[in-house]
Amino acid sequence: MIVLTDGYNDAHTAKTAICVIRYRPEEVAAVFDRNSAGRTCRELFGIGGDIPVVGSLADAPEANALLIGIAPPGGKIPEQWRPIVLEAISRGLTIFSGLHDFLKDDQEFAAAAQKHGVRLVDVRDNDEHDVADREGLRKECLRIHTVANDCSCGKMIAAVELTQRLKLKGVDAAFVATGQTGILVAGSGCPVDRVIADFVSGAAEKLVLANQHHDVIVVEGQGSLFHPRYSGVTLGLLHGVMPDALILCYEMGRTAVCGMEEVQLAPLEKVREFYESAANLMHPCRVIGVAVNGQKFSDDEVAAECDRVERELGLPTCDVIRHGPDKLAEAVVELMN
Amino acid sequence: MIVLTDGYNDAHTAKTAICVIRYRPEEVAAVFDRNSAGRTCRELFGIGGDIPVVGSLADAPEANALLIGIAPPGGKIPEQWRPIVLEAISRGLTIFSGLHDFLKDDQEFAAAAQKHGVRLVDVRDNDEHDVADREGLRKECLRIHTVANDCSCGKMIAAVELTQRLKLKGVDAAFVATGQTGILVAGSGCPVDRVIADFVSGAAEKLVLANQHHDVIVVEGQGSLFHPRYSGVTLGLLHGVMPDALILCYEMGRTAVCGMEEVQLAPLEKVREFYESAANLMHPCRVIGVAVNGQKFSDDEVAAECDRVERELGLPTCDVIRHGPDKLAEAVVELMN
Repeated sequence: MIVLTDGYNDAHTAKTAICVIRYRPEEVAAVFDRNSAGRTCRELFGIGGDIPVVGSLADAPEANALLIGIAPPGGKIPEQWRPIVLEAISRGLTIFSGLHDFLKDDQEFAAAAQKHGVRLVDVRDNDEHDVADREGLRKECLRIHTVANDCSCGKMIAAVELTQRLKLKGVDAAFVATGQTGILVAGSGCPVDRVIADFVSGAAEKLVLANQHHDVIVVEGQGSLFHPRYSGVTLGLLHGVMPDALILCYEMGRTAVCGMEEVQLAPLEKVREFYESAANLMHPCRVIGVAVNGQKFSDDEVAAECDRVERELGLPTCDVIRHGPDKLAEAVVELMN
Repeated sequence: MIVLTDGYNDAHTAKTAICVIRYRPEEVAAVFDRNSAGRTCRELFGIGGDIPVVGSLADAPEANALLIGIAPPGGKIPEQWRPIVLEAISRGLTIFSGLHDFLKDDQEFAAAAQKHGVRLVDVRDNDEHDVADREGLRKECLRIHTVANDCSCGKMIAAVELTQRLKLKGVDAAFVATGQTGILVAGSGCPVDRVIADFVSGAAEKLVLANQHHDVIVVEGQGSLFHPRYSGVTLGLLHGVMPDALILCYEMGRTAVCGMEEVQLAPLEKVREFYESAANLMHPCRVIGVAVNGQKFSDDEVAAECDRVERELGLPTCDVIRHGPDKLAEAVVELMN
């Protein structure tokens, strides 16, 4: 596939693109980003090796799909992308999109897709219509859930990395995707933020039921209980998953809510406390580890931060990209015994 | 209108019907309920005076609409109601429904409505697509919000009664509806439980912005932070409304979550604490009164319960139906000064 980030390649907005490149590089033929054309993916994002960055579809290696690789607030497609998407459709590429605004509901895209016999895949599209029932949950399956003090700080990456490490250790673990990026990485899941509000916990419970044949499931978190926009999604998901344990994620150095600079982030200890209170309304649960996203800091600074947090919260703490997720995997294994 | 409760006339399932009869009796020509045909509304529900209960549409006084007056879990229409709704359509009645399953999406209903030139009004239908922004909130408008330990225990009634009493006291107050029943009573509002999860707080914020020209708004709560199915709706609404004060509602004698007998309700003090913690993540807020729904108990029992709760929580407590909402209105007025 060709991953479209054109003009939106900062780590926050392009998180869908970056995660797909990180975890499914074999699927990515090129990145479409006119300002960076001629460079490599590694130069642009720090990952993805020699995958080329191109400035036109004609310059890209052969591909059969275009991925709209950004997640803007509100989920609308940038208008300047319209001609690119239309050209991709006319070239016969399947279009994958995780945006809230569905491609299939756009008359121009829908007409073009029909004309060229092309599929428009809206990853967030769903027909969830069931409430949670609390029936048939398998006690022997350990449910781990990644949560955070804000959105876009590494909940999905922590969940994927932790799952991979558990598998390396011989644990029968599965990553469970709950957002458009996770779904593109995992190949299945439910976009819970796009579910009708009454059915979020029901959709989350269904994901658990579908995956609980594994010994451990690591369910990707969404949003944050502390986010003015998305806290309802987070709580509905938390109460549908009924986790046994939480991994608390945050981005080092961030002081305000992503995209809402006037809203200060709460101290980590308070974040831990409130998540534990909220989770325990439904099922005994505690935070067992902290995943620090230290992408803006040096090795030494991140190491010092992890030490500080370990001391202050008394929890294993690491940057899963820089240090690997071993400490978190060990905390999970300990819980299994 | 004719209110359809046929076979589902218990106070919980028929809450939409009962609230419309309570607050808009002048709009109700008859109740359709075959098992109780020939009785009066007062005999069936304890309210609604001499409004007749009928066993067929032919027996009903003249009407121009049929209201589907129940709120079953999951929101699906009972199959045995299909012929009744089809007959109402063939008689030219507008059909109002607050169910999750939209009438307009039902091929048989849609075809019949088209044939007879009849409107199908799905009260829960919405196109909310905006996130909360925290912009333009008017500080001078006091935001009151009713919350509860469970669903279906009187949050809407407490909000309506409190608003009416504040108006009687000369306060410029407005009731703000957030559910299908409240919308039918108030004539406007947003069915937040039917909004896409990401946009619940945004929809709630819009309701505040649209009503904050009043001195006080009393925003109807939905679900409960303690409800395994709907807690996400409740938190999204709470964080979108950013209330200054909460009225805590519960039904006396209830010990388990409505419809989930295996889930015990939390002690009231814990309910208060958790709501205050959750609300204060966004805006300073405290519980200022308790609304007891004592419908299953005697006057003396309810009086004793209110005394006990007043003593234990140190908050003005009343049954708004039995005692009137004066104590709560006084608590609001005190907050305004």
